Amino acid sequence: MLTRRTPISVAQAQAKIAAVPLTAATEVIPTAQANHRVLATAVLAPYDYPHFRRAGMDGYAILADDDHDFPKEFTVRGEIQAGATWTAPLRPGDAVRIMTGAFVPDDASKVIRIEKTRPVTGQENKVQILTSESKTNITEKGTDGKKGNVILDKDQELNPGGLAVLTAFGIDQVTVYQRPRIAIIATGTELLAAGAPITPGKIYNSNGLMLQRLIEENGGIVDFTAQLPDDKNRIKQVLNEQIASHDIVITDGGVSVGDFDYLGDTARNADQLLFNKIKQRPGSVTTAFIQDHTFVMALSGNPGACFTGFYLYVEPLIRRYQHQLSRVKKVRATLAAPYNKTNGFDRYLRCTYQENNGHYRVYPNGINRSGSLANLQTTTCLALIPHSTTPMEVGTETDAWLLPFK
Amino acid sequence: MLTRRTPISVAQAQAKIAAVPLTAATEVIPTAQANHRVLATAVLAPYDYPHFRRAGMDGYAILADDDHDFPKEFTVRGEIQAGATWTAPLRPGDAVRIMTGAFVPDDASKVIRIEKTRPVTGQENKVQILTSESKTNITEKGTDGKKGNVILDKDQELNPGGLAVLTAFGIDQVTVYQRPRIAIIATGTELLAAGAPITPGKIYNSNGLMLQRLIEENGGIVDFTAQLPDDKNRIKQVLNEQIASHDIVITDGGVSVGDFDYLGDTARNADQLLFNKIKQRPGSVTTAFIQDHTFVMALSGNPGACFTGFYLYVEPLIRRYQHQLSRVKKVRATLAAPYNKTNGFDRYLRCTYQENNGHYRVYPNGINRSGSLANLQTTTCLALIPHSTTPMEVGTETDAWLLPFK
Repeated sequence: MLTRRTPISVAQAQAKIAAVPLTAATEVIPTAQANHRVLATAVLAPYDYPHFRRAGMDGYAILADDDHDFPKEFTVRGEIQAGATWTAPLRPGDAVRIMTGAFVPDDASKVIRIEKTRPVTGQENKVQILTSESKTNITEKGTDGKKGNVILDKDQELNPGGLAVLTAFGIDQVTVYQRPRIAIIATGTELLAAGAPITPGKIYNSNGLMLQRLIEENGGIVDFTAQLPDDKNRIKQVLNEQIASHDIVITDGGVSVGDFDYLGDTARNADQLLFNKIKQRPGSVTTAFIQDHTFVMALSGNPGACFTGFYLYVEPLIRRYQHQLSRVKKVRATLAAPYNKTNGFDRYLRCTYQENNGHYRVYPNGINRSGSLANLQTTTCLALIPHSTTPMEVGTETDAWLLPFK
Repeated sequence: MLTRRTPISVAQAQAKIAAVPLTAATEVIPTAQANHRVLATAVLAPYDYPHFRRAGMDGYAILADDDHDFPKEFTVRGEIQAGATWTAPLRPGDAVRIMTGAFVPDDASKVIRIEKTRPVTGQENKVQILTSESKTNITEKGTDGKKGNVILDKDQELNPGGLAVLTAFGIDQVTVYQRPRIAIIATGTELLAAGAPITPGKIYNSNGLMLQRLIEENGGIVDFTAQLPDDKNRIKQVLNEQIASHDIVITDGGVSVGDFDYLGDTARNADQLLFNKIKQRPGSVTTAFIQDHTFVMALSGNPGACFTGFYLYVEPLIRRYQHQLSRVKKVRATLAAPYNKTNGFDRYLRCTYQENNGHYRVYPNGINRSGSLANLQTTTCLALIPHSTTPMEVGTETDAWLLPFK
């Protein structure tokens, strides 16, 4: 049965998804595994860092009272290698050989770098210091962070530099937002098993691998994938099973207007139907609903529409679970080639772009049919072709969305 | 013993690394594992795609001879679901019900979408077609790619869209450039084992984890990490073992000018010493040499210097193994705060930046000592403070390097 659907705009569809509150689940994980995870709590310094007065140069530590009237000779009381400590008090005229990064004696006021010293011939325990230094060459305790102060704010995505900070402060686990758990269900009797020979009427499930990798590179966890024939009961059963155990279930296919609209009933009867028709090409049949607190994002099975739907609707949602903004960057751009097709709905054209001093030029990228996929590798942005009965000329200004990880 | 070193410029150091020829090792891997790997050979279409004439709409397939004088009734000869085929010839007045994505009968010339048809009451095998279509709603064989043509060029980094293209063409393995195998050897008696309690004079090995994650997010494989005390023989032994089994060995620490310069001798006696002193702060002691065709990159143990050295020298090298350009983007920028420290060497200042219409403003980011690390998480670019005896004013134009994955 054909059922009438009420189309809404892309902005409305995005707003409806964004308005659904998410539960902010967190977890504690080892720092070593936290690269690109987002801190759910601020991190405080458990101790001053550096936690000892540290030499910034190889050289000789001396007392403040001796820091005048150079050149002069000092008695070398010993050597502090990196990793060692020193407790003996210095007396006037004493110097201690010290390495970069090593512990500075409590009473020393300065480290004179080795280039400003000279050995004293025949006297191994003596050194001549030639001149003083304008700097102390000592990093005082707590210079990088004082005990109890915030060293990393919450809601930031950790990067290798942040992992270095955590490690330096001895913090070997962190509280981060959980990554959403996502199931992908591809539907269609036309889908061949991987490795099966190609036959007329059949195709490989190219959307399945694409969606899985798109989700993963945006921080989601894909722990269930399935490829189902057009069997209403089977689809419904698997969908319900996965809704029970995932934050998001993505279906792909089965949302067209024909007799094989397997997901339509489920969507209409869901706890909350967000939308089942959008004023956009490709992917006007894209559907979203909430069932048992799980998001179901029903994307078109057409590769171009599936790709577009991911970036417009799924990427921002996956990022929001992790308290992060979408990385799809919206810019104003000019069309570098004419677009002559007229549209009843807004079209999201797969394009490439060039940027020059903050100005973006977009180039339509090959065949832009819903079902075509040859341009998915090389597409780096989507550009808006507003619904219109007149062609768009070169130089027309429009919106474009730059795609991440491209 | 102090040994004099001859400093070269950063550009010269980078050029010396870039001039070393690399062997382009390739490997064959499953397509499913090839996201963000770089194709070493072009990929040709093994068959036309689509490999059958495909319906773009749900509707009715009809003969060209019948495509006139609507509305009129047709006899419905059957139904072609997605995944099925059809061999019976159509006769004048015949229509075949067809689903989006399904196989179109060889003799059909058009698919009239279902919205332009109406059932005939009481006659289940009849349909009334109301009007024609301007388009055929059929995607012809080979529209996305013809057998034997290049579908993906070599030297491009695959992304999820590319994996979809490969999957659609039934290509389940690809030839890609190997990722370089990298060992990281941190040296220093001051380094604590992970989890050991903090004590005066000792520090945790924060560079080790940072380097490992920086390498991995740029495509390198870290399959050996070690943390060694300042024991010349032990360091030499481990270094030689790792040189024998890696493309790149990164050492961290042990390159300062003092008595504990464990790597200096090895560098000077290597097959090819590229440099052992650079006119830069931090990290002037950064050293690079080739031994038995392996790159040894000896970075400073100071966190700020190690971080800077990675982006200036190691990142471009790791990317080059994979036939990719560096993702560190060099731009012109203006200084948004004065920098009052004068420098004998060029300084690479850890900064943040703001971009507005292609114009970059850089902000010095906290403490910029070599040994400090509190700003490594939040630093998003390096900005050049040229060697000078006068402070740099706000608005001075300089070079900046925007860091990837930040």
